[in-house]
Amino acid sequence: MRAITITTPGGPEVLELTEVPAPVPAAGEVLVEVAATAVNRADLLQRQGFYDPPPGASRYPGLECSGRITALGAGVSGWGVGDEVCALLSGGGYAEQVAVPVGQLLPVPKGLDPVTAAALPEVTCTVWSNVFQAAHLRPGETLLVHGGSSGIGTMAIQLGKAIGARVAVTAGSAEKLEACRGLGADVLINYRDQDFVAELGPDGADVILDVIGAKYLDRNIDALAVNGRLVIIGMQGGVQAELNIAKLMAKRAAVLSTSLRARPLHEKAAIVAAVREHVWPLLENDRIHPVIDRVLPLADAAEAHRLIESSTHIGKILLHA
Amino acid sequence: MRAITITTPGGPEVLELTEVPAPVPAAGEVLVEVAATAVNRADLLQRQGFYDPPPGASRYPGLECSGRITALGAGVSGWGVGDEVCALLSGGGYAEQVAVPVGQLLPVPKGLDPVTAAALPEVTCTVWSNVFQAAHLRPGETLLVHGGSSGIGTMAIQLGKAIGARVAVTAGSAEKLEACRGLGADVLINYRDQDFVAELGPDGADVILDVIGAKYLDRNIDALAVNGRLVIIGMQGGVQAELNIAKLMAKRAAVLSTSLRARPLHEKAAIVAAVREHVWPLLENDRIHPVIDRVLPLADAAEAHRLIESSTHIGKILLHA
Repeated sequence: MRAITITTPGGPEVLELTEVPAPVPAAGEVLVEVAATAVNRADLLQRQGFYDPPPGASRYPGLECSGRITALGAGVSGWGVGDEVCALLSGGGYAEQVAVPVGQLLPVPKGLDPVTAAALPEVTCTVWSNVFQAAHLRPGETLLVHGGSSGIGTMAIQLGKAIGARVAVTAGSAEKLEACRGLGADVLINYRDQDFVAELGPDGADVILDVIGAKYLDRNIDALAVNGRLVIIGMQGGVQAELNIAKLMAKRAAVLSTSLRARPLHEKAAIVAAVREHVWPLLENDRIHPVIDRVLPLADAAEAHRLIESSTHIGKILLHA
Repeated sequence: MRAITITTPGGPEVLELTEVPAPVPAAGEVLVEVAATAVNRADLLQRQGFYDPPPGASRYPGLECSGRITALGAGVSGWGVGDEVCALLSGGGYAEQVAVPVGQLLPVPKGLDPVTAAALPEVTCTVWSNVFQAAHLRPGETLLVHGGSSGIGTMAIQLGKAIGARVAVTAGSAEKLEACRGLGADVLINYRDQDFVAELGPDGADVILDVIGAKYLDRNIDALAVNGRLVIIGMQGGVQAELNIAKLMAKRAAVLSTSLRARPLHEKAAIVAAVREHVWPLLENDRIHPVIDRVLPLADAAEAHRLIESSTHIGKILLHA
């Protein structure tokens, strides 16, 4: 089969479509013929050599895919050859075939085509595990989403609205903010010329989903409501920052940080099961939908990385196999 | 009535037993004739002028008491004159009488005398709300308690063991650590000559109850297990510290910080109700008990503050009215 390989860490040009051995599904895994994969910021870090795959994971990039099951490993039940699926991966999505632990499989939602479904696993699992399972966003609360027009942002807005929360977003252009409004966002903040703490007002946000990290830490705590929860899932603004514990205590607030890829299989499976239970019905009833910026051929992975780096996209960028 | 007043912020000598007007219970409050109160570190900060009572609270120190109900405010049901109680207060415990919102009342547990019960409200509510409600300590997990021989520490050890957790403690002397062992602590760490991260080993602590704050922040995160929760309830080691978000993310960990006193009435009442449901049966069945260093007369409040400042006590110091 062919896969995108990274021989040397570097810029987008190091992503090369290469003939490689096909994966063999181990016990508890299925083999998926990939219809599409999607590009995540973590793939850019992996390409640059800053984010090695965890032990046992495929060396090829790609944290999610959609496709069709073509073979079953030992001990697999509940799934069959020919099933159309999408999947959370710990790597290997940028390929024509990938082996997937069954706990990370999801059916293609009714009414969606298989390619489109590649946009779903990372954003639904990330938003559900962080905003709902870790930070317990409740109806009537305010959710602040930094980077509202990103793949994760567009899903966080829709899931926040679907459960009855008020949703505020930051983004860097009027066009991006307009897209967020179209998804239901109530408060639109252009971070280039507005201060999100001031725009949120004194009541603040009960939950903040943050991809910036250090640069925003102190302002995020200023923006939290009493009993607020800040969840950091990215560090685009650095790793190390001053934390004022007295501010945190005065608000009885919490700072959480998580990632999906490094979790053990049983935790991933629990998240995927919860997403299937809570998010899949919303997709199948047209309450929410994946937002896709564009679909490129797998051979154009370098171009897809350049687009993500330029931050001009809205929603997900997919690569079809 | 008489109460301990603070005319000018300062050392223990500013605590003066003075004749003052008796409080009048408002609607939803009862008047309690105080049998005893207990000294908390927050009282020392209040005495020094660093921790003013919240709006509406008594100006006198004292965050808990025990005693007997002598009058009911309007609209009070479920409690009667003569009932023996202990109570969480937002102030005013260092007095012969105090007005208490009914949501903050607890009965004196069967088998305990009224004076002893003054040792319970702060430690049980603090430990329950932080270790169990906020950090969700579960059976089989490891709880690290900094300052294991403090009032809060001695209750945290016992409650941790009662639900089936493994408990590690830090303290500053062999005598204090021996007291912790007597309460059930499994891992004893003398912070003067041992490193708690090394002593906990690679598995770390699932929950850390911390009163040090800034000075321990980074080491506490090093000591956390994957999915660990650090709860900061004191800042004896400062307010501002560097937080390494990458470390937090790698452990999928959380930093929480809370306090009791500033909470609105309904939150305090919810905590008190949970303590009555979950902790009171353990007290009444002799599974746990308050640890009391000594009982002094209210007039000796200054001496009690000096003892707490010297950090030679084990458990609570009470003041009987």
